[in-house]
Amino acid sequence: MCAVKVRNLTIGNGNFIVMAGPCSIENREQLLEIAKEIKACGADILRGGAFKPRTSPYSFQGLGEEGLSYMKEAAEAAGLVSVSEVMDSSDIELVASYVDILQIGSRNMDNFALLKKVGKSGYPILLKRGYMSTIEELLLAAEYILKEGNDKIILCERGIRTFEKLTRNTFDLSAIPIIKKMSNLPIIADPSHGVGRADIVTPMAKAAVAAGADGLMIEVHPNPKKALSDGQQTLDYPSFRDLMEEVLELSAFMRGESPLQARGRLKAL
Amino acid sequence: MCAVKVRNLTIGNGNFIVMAGPCSIENREQLLEIAKEIKACGADILRGGAFKPRTSPYSFQGLGEEGLSYMKEAAEAAGLVSVSEVMDSSDIELVASYVDILQIGSRNMDNFALLKKVGKSGYPILLKRGYMSTIEELLLAAEYILKEGNDKIILCERGIRTFEKLTRNTFDLSAIPIIKKMSNLPIIADPSHGVGRADIVTPMAKAAVAAGADGLMIEVHPNPKKALSDGQQTLDYPSFRDLMEEVLELSAFMRGESPLQARGRLKAL
Amino acid sequence: MCAVKVRNLTIGNGNFIVMAGPCSIENREQLLEIAKEIKACGADILRGGAFKPRTSPYSFQGLGEEGLSYMKEAAEAAGLVSVSEVMDSSDIELVASYVDILQIGSRNMDNFALLKKVGKSGYPILLKRGYMSTIEELLLAAEYILKEGNDKIILCERGIRTFEKLTRNTFDLSAIPIIKKMSNLPIIADPSHGVGRADIVTPMAKAAVAAGADGLMIEVHPNPKKALSDGQQTLDYPSFRDLMEEVLELSAFMRGESPLQARGRLKAL
Amino acid sequence: MCAVKVRNLTIGNGNFIVMAGPCSIENREQLLEIAKEIKACGADILRGGAFKPRTSPYSFQGLGEEGLSYMKEAAEAAGLVSVSEVMDSSDIELVASYVDILQIGSRNMDNFALLKKVGKSGYPILLKRGYMSTIEELLLAAEYILKEGNDKIILCERGIRTFEKLTRNTFDLSAIPIIKKMSNLPIIADPSHGVGRADIVTPMAKAAVAAGADGLMIEVHPNPKKALSDGQQTLDYPSFRDLMEEVLELSAFMRGESPLQARGRLKAL
Repeated sequence: MCAVKVRNLTIGNGNFIVMAGPCSIENREQLLEIAKEIKACGADILRGGAFKPRTSPYSFQGLGEEGLSYMKEAAEAAGLVSVSEVMDSSDIELVASYVDILQIGSRNMDNFALLKKVGKSGYPILLKRGYMSTIEELLLAAEYILKEGNDKIILCERGIRTFEKLTRNTFDLSAIPIIKKMSNLPIIADPSHGVGRADIVTPMAKAAVAAGADGLMIEVHPNPKKALSDGQQTLDYPSFRDLMEEVLELSAFMRGESPLQARGRLKAL
Repeated sequence: MCAVKVRNLTIGNGNFIVMAGPCSIENREQLLEIAKEIKACGADILRGGAFKPRTSPYSFQGLGEEGLSYMKEAAEAAGLVSVSEVMDSSDIELVASYVDILQIGSRNMDNFALLKKVGKSGYPILLKRGYMSTIEELLLAAEYILKEGNDKIILCERGIRTFEKLTRNTFDLSAIPIIKKMSNLPIIADPSHGVGRADIVTPMAKAAVAAGADGLMIEVHPNPKKALSDGQQTLDYPSFRDLMEEVLELSAFMRGESPLQARGRLKAL
Repeated sequence: MCAVKVRNLTIGNGNFIVMAGPCSIENREQLLEIAKEIKACGADILRGGAFKPRTSPYSFQGLGEEGLSYMKEAAEAAGLVSVSEVMDSSDIELVASYVDILQIGSRNMDNFALLKKVGKSGYPILLKRGYMSTIEELLLAAEYILKEGNDKIILCERGIRTFEKLTRNTFDLSAIPIIKKMSNLPIIADPSHGVGRADIVTPMAKAAVAAGADGLMIEVHPNPKKALSDGQQTLDYPSFRDLMEEVLELSAFMRGESPLQARGRLKAL
Repeated sequence: MCAVKVRNLTIGNGNFIVMAGPCSIENREQLLEIAKEIKACGADILRGGAFKPRTSPYSFQGLGEEGLSYMKEAAEAAGLVSVSEVMDSSDIELVASYVDILQIGSRNMDNFALLKKVGKSGYPILLKRGYMSTIEELLLAAEYILKEGNDKIILCERGIRTFEKLTRNTFDLSAIPIIKKMSNLPIIADPSHGVGRADIVTPMAKAAVAAGADGLMIEVHPNPKKALSDGQQTLDYPSFRDLMEEVLELSAFMRGESPLQARGRLKAL
């Protein structure tokens, strides 16, 4: 098992981790607050988008470098590792100067020029499955990065495009045990994008844990209805706290710990 | 919550159940053995196909009424409830004379003539989601049965057709919490068809339990490699026993029982 | 090339035919009028549904046998061949007593019990591709009918379910040349269902002709906005007349006739 | 209608054009020969990949700048316009220094950083539909380019990913009339990728013309079986010559010219 170490955090190798935060970074104060809040709930990594891939050019495109600076400040203040998306090969060094992990988003999973360059960069990479990509294609995309000598790769299942209309994507949890068989890389799950509706994020997060995921990525915002993007799939603080309690207990149970031990760990936060 | 009662068994309403058995009924002795084996592992319902919907007319089409008579005998001998598929409206009474629950298979979910007739029949129905049907269409198919006055319906998620090639279908577990919100009917999950490969049936069964499924349907055969249909997705006895142990413990944990209690219940079998 | 002969009409073998009519048969006078109108435009076969497969049990389910009697009268009055759907194996003889060709609808393409029985019946069959079925599965469904000794089969491409949202289905015209290579059966195309929107039925009908289709099925209604089903994809009389003029000219061109010859044939109607 | 002018060639506005050439540029002599051959058949634009997006990093990745220099030489020698793909925003000027039109490939249709930069560049753009993208998303991708002030955009339908297995993609010809209604941009069709098998490229090319396409893109190679990529969907010279003859005649017919006029034009080449 090839665990990825980022600062003091081990991802994979039996260590279950949670990434959380807003879809888009909106302003400094809010991000500082979110970071503090998710840390208190037991999350390990702060996520937030500064460069946003939006279907329409008239949608909010993200704060860019200004947003990245808020990420750095908020993650450090809360004692969290940080992750943010890089969309263009010319921005790799810029993003890496502010955050710990570079995310390759679903729409760029087969942007092979970008994969080669983040491979060469050597930074830790969160590689999300393309929403229209097969599991084999995800593993071959990881191979583009590995081939350049970079094995700090975390894979992420985040749903695929199908005909179903009650969910934004179809969350393909079978990817998790299959990747466990075909690869040594850690694989996490993003139920927020996987289903695209906040009301079932928690049961699907638990399903991902039961399927063997090494971690979760969850969208959290103090007021999802006013979020600048993806509000419909974002949890507010109380819902996220509930999710974390259920998920950490289940994760402990899956590893053979007693729920009491898990609860103890949660309370200690 | 509208539980379905069949003989002494309650499906839904917090009571977790497991259906298991071969894809096709092959012969009398084998079915008697399978029934005894799955009962010993804690299963509640014997499944087995006598009328088989096969893509090619040159594939094995099932034993027909002869197979149904073996079902009746094997289920009664082992103390199990039984379920088998009905494919044609003219066979409803025939199938119902041998088994407790009539299955409407994935390919017949939108065979509306058949839905109306099983609705009028009043027998308990296992309604599988069409492999190309939306969740809303599954609920409307159930409505065809309900409209005729029959509310003894168990829904079943069994995977949908997508572009992914490493699984036979994409197992859409988001259907489970969504149906819990939109309907009072119990919903079970069929990971055997959902993924189509035996090696990941157990983790996906656990994911279904974590997502809130009221039960599972699992294909079991003494020698999957020699099964007349669906061998690649069928568990042998030892694998099924392991699955049951893990699933029953997880199910107990989800309901707030301790694993020790669950283990105790399992050992008592 | 295995042409299907129904009354004096040859379908396939280089003879291009058009089926047209309403989605649902609504009343006697209207159907008599539609039949006369489509005949005047050059159509060969009257289509109309008496038993309607509707997603919801609360939608209009069709006039049943009463509708079939109108079909018989209208087709005979106009000198047209007739086709209507059979949804249940117990209705085969009933439908066949009123119409010339039995349609197996998209939702019943893998209703194997029905396929076997229409195979045994010997009546001419219009077999529509399932909206969730591969081309190979369509050919295997035809094989269910052929195996019973009935080779009077007309295949029909009518669109498959995909993620695209601006069309009801994705009209898979590649099925036409592929089936020409793999089968001797005639294959027609149904652009009305294929795209589900009247405004592009004519260009897609022409595309089907250019791809080599042996005929077309087109939904026509005197007032599509008031049609009891599928109004959004149905042509009114003037649009259908325009379509027929363009399609017959193109079909003539494809066969090497001059447009003048084709126009002459059209004017002679 | 917003036609795109490149050198002396008008794309759109009733002027039907054909792009042809190999999937990958393989060597100088071969490309010079292909260019001469397709010109003789009536093609207008030479296509060929120097930077190749390949699913596996171990597949042939293209000749890079060396290949581009062959493109420039071959297009000029044959009197053709040229097009080649740009995969990374840092290569825009490099590619534009050798070819007339920059292709944004299917996998980069939602690489928004690249879209913005080719928009700012002002060069003519061939924007291919993502194999996972809706028609609306294609139009919004074009909007990213238009918003930067660049309206020299040619759209291209090239098939979408579905469950069908006998074709590489499902060629969605309904995109053509829909885009004609929603946009002023010219739209061409790529049946080679659309179906992925050489044996039905010609009927599907004709279907695209009948649906109203402003042009075609066709893969051609002197020996498809030995091509370094996409050989199974590539035409050899005689097949391409036959395709061009059929397509130009049909295109002439669609515009109201007589086949004789069209044939005359073809012979004059």
